[in-house]
Amino acid sequence: MSEFDDALALAAIEGTDGEMAAVLGEGWLVGAAINGGVLMALGARAMGEAVSAAGGARDVLAFSAYFLSAAGPGPVVLAPEVLRVGRTFSTAQVSIRQPGPDGEPLERVRMLGTVADVGAVSDPVHRQPVAPEMPPPEDCLPATLAPREIIDPIRIMRRLDLRIDPATAGFGVGVPTGVGELRGWIRFVDGRDPDLLSLPFFLDAFPPVAFDLGAMGWAPTIEFSGHLRAVPAPGWLRVRLTTTTVSGGLLEEDCVLWDSTGRVVAQSRQLAGVRMPAAPGAA
Amino acid sequence: MSEFDDALALAAIEGTDGEMAAVLGEGWLVGAAINGGVLMALGARAMGEAVSAAGGARDVLAFSAYFLSAAGPGPVVLAPEVLRVGRTFSTAQVSIRQPGPDGEPLERVRMLGTVADVGAVSDPVHRQPVAPEMPPPEDCLPATLAPREIIDPIRIMRRLDLRIDPATAGFGVGVPTGVGELRGWIRFVDGRDPDLLSLPFFLDAFPPVAFDLGAMGWAPTIEFSGHLRAVPAPGWLRVRLTTTTVSGGLLEEDCVLWDSTGRVVAQSRQLAGVRMPAAPGAA
Repeated sequence: MSEFDDALALAAIEGTDGEMAAVLGEGWLVGAAINGGVLMALGARAMGEAVSAAGGARDVLAFSAYFLSAAGPGPVVLAPEVLRVGRTFSTAQVSIRQPGPDGEPLERVRMLGTVADVGAVSDPVHRQPVAPEMPPPEDCLPATLAPREIIDPIRIMRRLDLRIDPATAGFGVGVPTGVGELRGWIRFVDGRDPDLLSLPFFLDAFPPVAFDLGAMGWAPTIEFSGHLRAVPAPGWLRVRLTTTTVSGGLLEEDCVLWDSTGRVVAQSRQLAGVRMPAAPGAA
Repeated sequence: MSEFDDALALAAIEGTDGEMAAVLGEGWLVGAAINGGVLMALGARAMGEAVSAAGGARDVLAFSAYFLSAAGPGPVVLAPEVLRVGRTFSTAQVSIRQPGPDGEPLERVRMLGTVADVGAVSDPVHRQPVAPEMPPPEDCLPATLAPREIIDPIRIMRRLDLRIDPATAGFGVGVPTGVGELRGWIRFVDGRDPDLLSLPFFLDAFPPVAFDLGAMGWAPTIEFSGHLRAVPAPGWLRVRLTTTTVSGGLLEEDCVLWDSTGRVVAQSRQLAGVRMPAAPGAA
């Protein structure tokens, strides 16, 4: 069993209305908080399991996550609610909680999702964004090249083989391009292939696109919505992050993931906080 | 009071935990179902009111709506839940229901939203999509030019002054461009100016972008997420719809709204069903 499958293991909690338990170790930390992507992957899995148990499909096709408070390492409770079971599309919700300082449950994330058989709603492909041209993974820059004081607190990086297209890696040496685009490759370091369950995690695993605008600080996600459009083939995923709209300390970030066959397997958009550097010449 | 404000009027329901009542007349129909945009505007307003009553801000900054069943004209109940009240960002949920055939409530839409003071998180603008070049409203094509058998069942069109850029209006005469883009202008026909409350409605008021791909049929929305980035100035809104990904009978549609000053005031992405026409030469 891979580290990721271990993180996504769900155990039914006896005596509850479908609640499930999971445990997130310190390996999923980014700084002091558990990575939002692994929380979304957990929530998506819990919604799929709940809909499946109610007679519907099991794959999350679309999801939206609203972040309420930072999660820490340790036990997590997932409380799913099935809103509708349909022949093709079902809808569910999940609340992700942890015990607060007083032992009372504190909500970390609330999610909504559409559940379907993704393999049955992925073909034919009429149009999709063309995968970006970039050097092969072996000619891209591994995230592990970053200074240790930067990379060490991003514990999830030890689980990821993440390579950044040199053309968009200027932020790593203090010269971001300013274009607002990051590209690269990603896979699990332990050889686990991507699947639908891991796509919510990969959609949120790259460095923030704000880095390419010179905003190197904390970028808390407010809202994150994704579409999982096809079951990924084994191998590397290609990643492209872009942003079109940055204002009032808020940044919109779009992510597209292509599998090793060049198929778009997932897309997402998030709204996140950002601290933009002062403009050149500004006081 | 404008027709839109009338539709968005909410009355507290005595003896409930914050539930609110509204009434949607037949004027908000698109075919046999109430338009999803007016439902999202109602839901967003209910979340804002609930958060405000709990001591938070009142504007919806980000929202996600999951459509469960088609709403009909008549009474609507909105059941909001405040998940978190924060100094800048709060989070809420709302369930939109109508009585089913047996009198029991049937859920139509479930929404999540982030509530903030949008005016306080809209400046400065670091980047935003440039407004599309197109002829002024008087040189664009009013939707009312469409054949009566098409436009008459779209009852919301009588409340809208909607002008389509001739360069993207080919679908109206059977020659869609195939590019996957619609552009134009929109405002209320009764002179009510746009505001934050109306943006969720305007984001979903244009014809589906699928029309420009030759898919003229029903396009049921599965999931719709939007960001409201600034309070719109009075006057026309510019609209651009695009799509990048169409596969397996599902289409992703992006909308951007610019106000009369050229400022991006809202962005959205939805996943909707689509029936693509057979490819030329296909059996």
